[in-house]
Amino acid sequence: MTLASKDEAAVRARLNTWADACRAMDIDAIMACYAPEAVSFDCHSVFRLKGLDSHRRHLEACFPYMVAPMTLDLHELSVAAGGGVAFAHYAMQCGATGQDGQEHRSWLRGTICLREIDGRWLIVHDHCSAPFDPMTNTAMLDAGPEDLKKVA
Amino acid sequence: MTLASKDEAAVRARLNTWADACRAMDIDAIMACYAPEAVSFDCHSVFRLKGLDSHRRHLEACFPYMVAPMTLDLHELSVAAGGGVAFAHYAMQCGATGQDGQEHRSWLRGTICLREIDGRWLIVHDHCSAPFDPMTNTAMLDAGPEDLKKVA
Repeated sequence: MTLASKDEAAVRARLNTWADACRAMDIDAIMACYAPEAVSFDCHSVFRLKGLDSHRRHLEACFPYMVAPMTLDLHELSVAAGGGVAFAHYAMQCGATGQDGQEHRSWLRGTICLREIDGRWLIVHDHCSAPFDPMTNTAMLDAGPEDLKKVA
Repeated sequence: MTLASKDEAAVRARLNTWADACRAMDIDAIMACYAPEAVSFDCHSVFRLKGLDSHRRHLEACFPYMVAPMTLDLHELSVAAGGGVAFAHYAMQCGATGQDGQEHRSWLRGTICLREIDGRWLIVHDHCSAPFDPMTNTAMLDAGPEDLKKVA
C-alpha cells in the first residue's frame, strides 16, 4: 500500500467513525473525531462553531428534538489525502424521527477537512448545508442530486 | 521557505486569483481556477455542480441579476496545504448591486479544496452556504460571526 492510499484509508476510517457516532447521536464519540480548535459550519441555526465547547453545546441543543438513531447515508463520497492534509465531500441523505414520531428526511451537502495530528487523523473543519431558493430565501431541503434521488 | 510554507503561499495566491475573478464577475477567469472535474456546492438554487460546463451555466444564469463588481471580503481565512492536497475556509461578506440599483449584502461561509495538478494548484471542490433557521426554513443571510459584524 502506498503512503497516499494508506492515508486515504485512514481518512475513510475516520469518516466512518464520525458517521457512526452521528447516527448514534453520541456526542462524546462525535467530539472525539474533532481537533480541539476545529471550526464547523453547520447547516442550521448558527453561522459557525469554533472549538469543542461551542460545538458540544450546539449538539446538546439539537439532539433533544430527535430520537436516536439518525439516518445518515453518504453518496458520491470523494476523498483526497496527502502530506498530513485531507478533505472529503459527499451528498448526504439525513433522516431523524422527531419527538412527534414523524420522520423528517432531507438532502444536505457535506465537506470535511482533516489534519494528521500526532499520528491521528482529526477533523479540523466541516461544512454542512442546504442551498436556498434566492426567490424565497427558503432552504431547499429536498433538492438532492437528481440522479441519486431516483434510486434513494 | 519550507515546502509546506511554499505550498501554502501558492494556495493563497490561487485564492486571491479566484476572489479577484469573482469580484470582477469574469466567468472565464473564475473557471480557470478550477480543475475540469470540480464539484461545487453553491449557496443557492442548485444542490451541486459537477464539472466546468454546469458551473459556467450556473454563473451565466446568476450574473445578469447583478452589476459588477461584486463585493467579496474574506475574514478568518485559514489555509492548510501539504502533499499536493490543500483546503481553506473563511467567513465571507458578499455584496452585489442588483439591476434595481440596490446593494444586497450577506454573510456566507466558504470552504475551498485544492489539488496540485501538473504543478498548478486548482480548485477541485468548493462549498458556499448560509445556515437556515430550522423553525422557519429561512436562509440566515445576515447572521455572520458576531465578533466580526461589529467592525465590518
